Amino acid sequence: MLVPNDDKFFELFEKQTVVLKKASSHLLNTFQTYEDVKNKCHKMKNYEHQGDEITHDIYQLLNKSFVTPIEPEDISRLAKALDDILDHIDDTSSKMYFYGITEVDNYMIELAKLIDGQTAEIEEAIKGIRNFKKPSTIEERCIEINRLENLADEILGNAIRELFLSNDAIKIIKNKDIYETLEIATDKCEEVANVLYDLSIKHS
Amino acid sequence: MLVPNDDKFFELFEKQTVVLKKASSHLLNTFQTYEDVKNKCHKMKNYEHQGDEITHDIYQLLNKSFVTPIEPEDISRLAKALDDILDHIDDTSSKMYFYGITEVDNYMIELAKLIDGQTAEIEEAIKGIRNFKKPSTIEERCIEINRLENLADEILGNAIRELFLSNDAIKIIKNKDIYETLEIATDKCEEVANVLYDLSIKHS
Amino acid sequence: MLVPNDDKFFELFEKQTVVLKKASSHLLNTFQTYEDVKNKCHKMKNYEHQGDEITHDIYQLLNKSFVTPIEPEDISRLAKALDDILDHIDDTSSKMYFYGITEVDNYMIELAKLIDGQTAEIEEAIKGIRNFKKPSTIEERCIEINRLENLADEILGNAIRELFLSNDAIKIIKNKDIYETLEIATDKCEEVANVLYDLSIKHS
Repeated sequence: MLVPNDDKFFELFEKQTVVLKKASSHLLNTFQTYEDVKNKCHKMKNYEHQGDEITHDIYQLLNKSFVTPIEPEDISRLAKALDDILDHIDDTSSKMYFYGITEVDNYMIELAKLIDGQTAEIEEAIKGIRNFKKPSTIEERCIEINRLENLADEILGNAIRELFLSNDAIKIIKNKDIYETLEIATDKCEEVANVLYDLSIKHS
Repeated sequence: MLVPNDDKFFELFEKQTVVLKKASSHLLNTFQTYEDVKNKCHKMKNYEHQGDEITHDIYQLLNKSFVTPIEPEDISRLAKALDDILDHIDDTSSKMYFYGITEVDNYMIELAKLIDGQTAEIEEAIKGIRNFKKPSTIEERCIEINRLENLADEILGNAIRELFLSNDAIKIIKNKDIYETLEIATDKCEEVANVLYDLSIKHS
Repeated sequence: MLVPNDDKFFELFEKQTVVLKKASSHLLNTFQTYEDVKNKCHKMKNYEHQGDEITHDIYQLLNKSFVTPIEPEDISRLAKALDDILDHIDDTSSKMYFYGITEVDNYMIELAKLIDGQTAEIEEAIKGIRNFKKPSTIEERCIEINRLENLADEILGNAIRELFLSNDAIKIIKNKDIYETLEIATDKCEEVANVLYDLSIKHS
């Protein structure tokens, strides 16, 4: 309990981003080949459980560590933001099933691609916190994550605008919620980028 | 201002959980005997005001204390999470009235029962933070709170799935919001459990 | 990097509240003269970008400062809350356009007036953090901000109650979201008031 657990923290965060990347790829796959939705949601739920366990392990380690490689508040903020992304990816997947959505549109696919792009950047950026000597790599990836989030805002706007041109209230309820949940996932990726960016500045 | 205010903190948290338990019982009662809704909402609003005052007192005490029995961040996180539960219980109650909901279904009653079960566990668990010598009691109650939250997720899924089988858009809007607000209340109970669990590990 | 940046923090917060006040006035103006909505949204988006940049500058300065005039957690909480208000004002404006809302009602105007009143109080209150010798001014303004938030709750309740008397599901979806987004903006103003109030007590 008295020795630094630096490596363990980094390992857990890296493990978390691997699960996250798998989940976002699985969401994109679910959308691109929209069939067997119930089973695909079930598989997504497994990723979400894996993520929950890793998050739990990070907090457990944090509570037991006297010395941490980065500030406890930043560990906790990062763990929470990563967990939030996975939650919103899983929520989207569940809602597709529970809302009985029978058709995926291009806006949903575009948003899922952006999330998948963001989690790929996060997976790489997180490796940079082991060693802040090359902060520029982290910073470049953070800028890219933010760029993707801005694109998601635009897509959301267009998707919503088109949706309200229809007169199908139930479709509006369903799709509006799906679009918004996807867009929140991109916001949570941006929150991870913000934490990583702050960390790289603090340590530069 | 220079002496520890340990007992006052514990008293305020215990007082807060008593109000919380009353509010969750009142919600369950509102659902089980669904009549005179306006007055029942009014009574709920009183609980919410009592809770707000206690939350305010906790922050006031925190701002004035140089020494605290548990870390300031944990006091603040715990106070916020308790306040959030009460807010969502009160929100549900208000929405029943403002949305003009005329009928309570079994999903709502089941969710209200889970919340009432969680606040009962919270009321007991909070007593444990006066003395962490028996952390196992806190931990067992936290596990139970999380189990109830998982049940709430399942009930929400089933409720939403059934709701979307109807073609009544306005009913979908109303009930979806009620189910979701109830489910968020169970999440906030889980957040309280997480804080208490972390505290019990830190102090073990 | 080693000298205190006190003045810079205060300047940035004051700059942020000036932008915020402009944005809330612009929202009220958009509602009161509801025409040319697309351009008005575009102008609002500019305020939002200005606010984002200032928020970014505050965090950047925080990451580079060893000494801060108020505690880092409070700087970060205040910056986040101010940013959240602006986000919800901008969200409202975007949603008016994207949802294709053709008519503004009195509830919306009343809520926009309350937000505009709150941001005026915030703009004045924030000046008080340069010097806590007269905390009563801050506290009075915080009490007023909270009073306006309570009024917003009441207006929201009445607006929602009236809205659900209609049988127009699509109108319900649109207006409910607008009312709620406006009401969240008033909550975020209250959060700013809470931070300022806590600060004034800590420093009294």
